[in-house]
Amino acid sequence: MNVAIIGGHSCSADIAKIAESVGKGIAQMGHSLICGGLGGVMEAACKGAKSAGGRTIGILPGHDKGEANPYVDIPIVTGLGYMRNNLVVKNAEIVIAIDGKEGTLSEIAFALQMKKPLLGINTWDIPGIIQVKDAQEAIEWIKRKR
Amino acid sequence: MNVAIIGGHSCSADIAKIAESVGKGIAQMGHSLICGGLGGVMEAACKGAKSAGGRTIGILPGHDKGEANPYVDIPIVTGLGYMRNNLVVKNAEIVIAIDGKEGTLSEIAFALQMKKPLLGINTWDIPGIIQVKDAQEAIEWIKRKR
Amino acid sequence: MNVAIIGGHSCSADIAKIAESVGKGIAQMGHSLICGGLGGVMEAACKGAKSAGGRTIGILPGHDKGEANPYVDIPIVTGLGYMRNNLVVKNAEIVIAIDGKEGTLSEIAFALQMKKPLLGINTWDIPGIIQVKDAQEAIEWIKRKR
Amino acid sequence: MNVAIIGGHSCSADIAKIAESVGKGIAQMGHSLICGGLGGVMEAACKGAKSAGGRTIGILPGHDKGEANPYVDIPIVTGLGYMRNNLVVKNAEIVIAIDGKEGTLSEIAFALQMKKPLLGINTWDIPGIIQVKDAQEAIEWIKRKR
Repeated sequence: MNVAIIGGHSCSADIAKIAESVGKGIAQMGHSLICGGLGGVMEAACKGAKSAGGRTIGILPGHDKGEANPYVDIPIVTGLGYMRNNLVVKNAEIVIAIDGKEGTLSEIAFALQMKKPLLGINTWDIPGIIQVKDAQEAIEWIKRKR
Repeated sequence: MNVAIIGGHSCSADIAKIAESVGKGIAQMGHSLICGGLGGVMEAACKGAKSAGGRTIGILPGHDKGEANPYVDIPIVTGLGYMRNNLVVKNAEIVIAIDGKEGTLSEIAFALQMKKPLLGINTWDIPGIIQVKDAQEAIEWIKRKR
Repeated sequence: MNVAIIGGHSCSADIAKIAESVGKGIAQMGHSLICGGLGGVMEAACKGAKSAGGRTIGILPGHDKGEANPYVDIPIVTGLGYMRNNLVVKNAEIVIAIDGKEGTLSEIAFALQMKKPLLGINTWDIPGIIQVKDAQEAIEWIKRKR
Repeated sequence: MNVAIIGGHSCSADIAKIAESVGKGIAQMGHSLICGGLGGVMEAACKGAKSAGGRTIGILPGHDKGEANPYVDIPIVTGLGYMRNNLVVKNAEIVIAIDGKEGTLSEIAFALQMKKPLLGINTWDIPGIIQVKDAQEAIEWIKRKR
């Protein structure tokens, strides 16, 4: 199963810590992590997943694999710009939003549109998001459901 | 100039009336109307624009021009599904959100990301949207700015 | 009906003359011209169509309307790069290839895939292209078929 | 490094044998195989790669992972239809065309446009393709160059 982590390409140290924990938890459950492949929340999540030996997929907006953060195993370049946000969500069975700005909001909108389970940590307050308080609660939610 | 009207492919009669007035006002100012080309808010807005002799462009999600509402002058098929939401916003200088669900939310997110002026009537409450109360106020805002 | 003209963004004066004649002929039949919106064959074709009062649509690869040649009435920006070649063909009922390099070859491939009538003037030699010798023959072919 | 194998979603037994050998050779060199993820040449190539313990990525046209052939490790759904052909090529450092029809021709065009090394086995005769006679010659070409 692919779990998407969506969030900004820059973030605070506290948010990075949460993303890293979520990424690690996903890998420990044996799931693949999919994300937009860049820095910030995406990088922290990938770092966490790799620390537990997980697999990470990064769907990049541009044409250059080198844009991927160093914890992405499988970079996919698209040249689609922000339209690639749609592909990140489309390729996941569960989506977790952590923090994030307008880019993350577009991914939240697509996740709701596709009726994917969507967890949120410290993110947009949009009806349909299952708000959880931290990484542990997100991971437990996934364990319970699958 | 292109003005985008974004909103759901189905809507109440009251919302349709607002969309029609906004579409008419855009055409009266001499602007083109761009939208997702389908029914609901999109159709009402196109109907309004055509009633004032305006030009309407519909960026369709599928492969079939026949999906366009009857008030679309220039249907553009994309086969991009909801990714086409990005193109609707990208092709407008001003975006007006009327009502709408998750699809509209993704367009709002893209408009904010692209830093386009974004008006909202009876729609999502997202920071960055310039909320106006009705069609008249939206049209006056555009007149003042341009 | 939309007729697509596909060809390179730079071309010789002779090729430009052919493209201009084809564009003019399309407009005289009352059809819209759709193309990739840039220079070369695209610009010459649009110039011809406008000289006969026709309508021209340019599906641009980038994000900037200013990239469109001056004879495009309706520029559509996509940010899709060369993937937009698919949209040019998808939005036409008939495709005419004039000269052209690899970009044009991708459009030829898509036209064949979509089973669109595809005329060629001085272009790639690919089975399925209806090769005609000049603008006049292309226009007559269209008149006969429609 | 990613090597793309492009070719039809159905093919003869002889072509499948070639594709399987090429896929195996790519995996034996330690490269990942990327393709359109469906049947025919794509499936045979993935089967070959997996027989040598390689990694296979399938960039699918639709929204359903289940469309991937059983030898795809990492399916990426796109919903882009044939526009996804562009992504297959964009994500490869070397492209190998085997047999194929119009879909393959569009990938050949994109590979030439992106100036990727492009080998051909029993495929379209387009200038710029490095024509080789069989799987072994293709693999040896890659070994020599890298």
